[in-house]
Amino acid sequence: MPVIVQKYGGTSIGSIEKISQVAEKIITEKEKGNDLVVVVSAMSGETNKLVELAKSIDKDPSGREFDVLLSTGEQITISLLAMTLIKKGYKAISFTGSQAGIFTNSVFNKARIETINNSKIKKYLDLGYIVVIAGFQGVTENGEVTTLGRGGSDTSAVAISVAMDAKECQIFTDVDGVFTTDPRISAGAKKIDQITSEEMLELSSQGSKVLQPRAVEFAGKYDIGIRVLSTFGDGSGTFIKKENDGRMEKAIISGIAFNKDEAQLTIRGVPDQPGIASLILGPIAELNIDVDMIVQNVGEDGLANFTFTVPRSDFNNGLKSLEESSKKLKAKKVIGNNKIVKISMVGVGMRTHPGVASKMFSVLADNNINISMISTSEIKISIVTDEKNLETAINVLHDAFKLER
Amino acid sequence: MPVIVQKYGGTSIGSIEKISQVAEKIITEKEKGNDLVVVVSAMSGETNKLVELAKSIDKDPSGREFDVLLSTGEQITISLLAMTLIKKGYKAISFTGSQAGIFTNSVFNKARIETINNSKIKKYLDLGYIVVIAGFQGVTENGEVTTLGRGGSDTSAVAISVAMDAKECQIFTDVDGVFTTDPRISAGAKKIDQITSEEMLELSSQGSKVLQPRAVEFAGKYDIGIRVLSTFGDGSGTFIKKENDGRMEKAIISGIAFNKDEAQLTIRGVPDQPGIASLILGPIAELNIDVDMIVQNVGEDGLANFTFTVPRSDFNNGLKSLEESSKKLKAKKVIGNNKIVKISMVGVGMRTHPGVASKMFSVLADNNINISMISTSEIKISIVTDEKNLETAINVLHDAFKLER
Repeated sequence: MPVIVQKYGGTSIGSIEKISQVAEKIITEKEKGNDLVVVVSAMSGETNKLVELAKSIDKDPSGREFDVLLSTGEQITISLLAMTLIKKGYKAISFTGSQAGIFTNSVFNKARIETINNSKIKKYLDLGYIVVIAGFQGVTENGEVTTLGRGGSDTSAVAISVAMDAKECQIFTDVDGVFTTDPRISAGAKKIDQITSEEMLELSSQGSKVLQPRAVEFAGKYDIGIRVLSTFGDGSGTFIKKENDGRMEKAIISGIAFNKDEAQLTIRGVPDQPGIASLILGPIAELNIDVDMIVQNVGEDGLANFTFTVPRSDFNNGLKSLEESSKKLKAKKVIGNNKIVKISMVGVGMRTHPGVASKMFSVLADNNINISMISTSEIKISIVTDEKNLETAINVLHDAFKLER
Repeated sequence: MPVIVQKYGGTSIGSIEKISQVAEKIITEKEKGNDLVVVVSAMSGETNKLVELAKSIDKDPSGREFDVLLSTGEQITISLLAMTLIKKGYKAISFTGSQAGIFTNSVFNKARIETINNSKIKKYLDLGYIVVIAGFQGVTENGEVTTLGRGGSDTSAVAISVAMDAKECQIFTDVDGVFTTDPRISAGAKKIDQITSEEMLELSSQGSKVLQPRAVEFAGKYDIGIRVLSTFGDGSGTFIKKENDGRMEKAIISGIAFNKDEAQLTIRGVPDQPGIASLILGPIAELNIDVDMIVQNVGEDGLANFTFTVPRSDFNNGLKSLEESSKKLKAKKVIGNNKIVKISMVGVGMRTHPGVASKMFSVLADNNINISMISTSEIKISIVTDEKNLETAINVLHDAFKLER
């Protein structure tokens, strides 16, 4: 039987009533003749409660112990969901990440899935069970519990889809799908029916919260189709596939994303010499801080200016590290700014339609929006601007590129 | 270094502040030059919360899923306690039952420990770690999570003490030790300094809530000394040892216990023939119901009357099973009573002092307390009476046997 992997996030299973609704959705899909593997997050609020407990003991708690703690959140939901399915008359069994055979490396709190031993999952599907698996968590080969970091359940779902050669990976959320931009910011925002994983990757890594970038990357790599849809509605959501066969004519821009969770770090007046970037970013990487945008250029004095963005929660650590590097490198100045927003326009159509970037910049300039950083890729243009410009920028761009269609 | 095993129950670690106090107690013992293995329960209230969640889905939830759910309670406390010890500057590591190598049979909710693979615990003790282990839980050889049933953390602690050849197993509770009877019922109740495991076993299996009977049995069998003491006081508690070397003259009675958590089931008018007891108790055992007292006698009509007690929570299931047996056996009547209390007098001195039973019965008769069941062992006399007689019975017996000394 074809395997369908479904993933339900915290808001979808935030109460016993909601778990019962989710069980009905699962049963509907099972009754269509599919084998069902269901990946769940912790109940909404549960993870935050555990984080607070830990932080009240130690602001920077042991990573290993933190993962032992956090992984209980999903362990609670898998058992409750399995009980609910059993009560409704279906065979169901829950697995923790460890029981499901999800092996990760041993970077606590931010572990990466290395392999999945699918034999146990397969065995129980063959016996007619609905298999319920804890997302967000895994186990090292030494038996240590790990978690995958924010949004890790999406990654779990996609990785399991790959391991089970699933027909489709359905990610259930509290929104109807992927939108051209955030509907709370722009009234003209529209749902997208189909999108390539490449575009989705750019959109999601730029802060569109619907889907975890790592999950999209994974799905694109192994050509797994992901469908993002609402737990509480009946729509068909947004389908994300490696190749977009459905659209005859590609839209130039598929969406506008933004990210308020970043901060900008700048080091000025660094002697311009080979290896300077790695001397600056090496210590940042050692702190396990993800660097997003990176811009380097050389000033009139022949000295280099180097700017990059990091998650806002890593701002203080990043700044400290950069100040240490600055002393070693005899740089002139270190500047940090955590009141920024990154805005990105994404679309595969950019490849064949030149002039998107210049139009973007002129629209922003016409509206007095100052740009402090620019970075481009084949299908994306990102700019960094002051946080206060967010709404205006999104709306004028959405209008200018006719995304409301 | 000598190994000390400490066990802290739910009320001892019911908040971050209490966990910090517990950590100080652990550190004190560690600083004396001992290797420390600490077994913890779930935070008080946590297990009940999880039970309620499960019961709101299904009154009789899947045993396997129930254990996956319940085991999260201890997983939370082990990580919080380990974090606290680390924050205080000590090396500490937490293990779930599974990680600690505590293997059980696969009777979910009431599993029994079969073996403990102590290599991981030993390894980390040798590296100088304080090892924190989740009580109440284990794992089957197939990797299924199990729980040991009520009071299982005590059993975990003793089993680990055996596996580690511990010098002492310290059970921390919210009372100062074992008392001659419940101080809330009798103002004359006194703390006992030393008691044999045999006596303790009778006391605890008769409902003295301080220590789980299975744990006492285990400790007696492997000659592990258990010390019961208060988390919040500094007393030396009650020491429980196989042989009581300390006391020159044995007291006749060491304590009076009671148990309100039982119910009484009677089947009357059963043809008296070999195998009748197993025909009646077989189906009860199949339901995994623990039978405590058993009394059988033959009436004037040559038919047998058979009475036994079960945990009050199993009353309805037990009654139903007995009614089915009654039809098969063509018995005359089935009677159930769940408003009873069992009162037991315990003491190794009984062996050498005859007349304890007759004195007990006459004291109760003088006070108009009716007895519905009697059962005796070498060092214990138990009677069952109406629940309403509890306080009077305990007090008149405590006085008559001069337990206040």
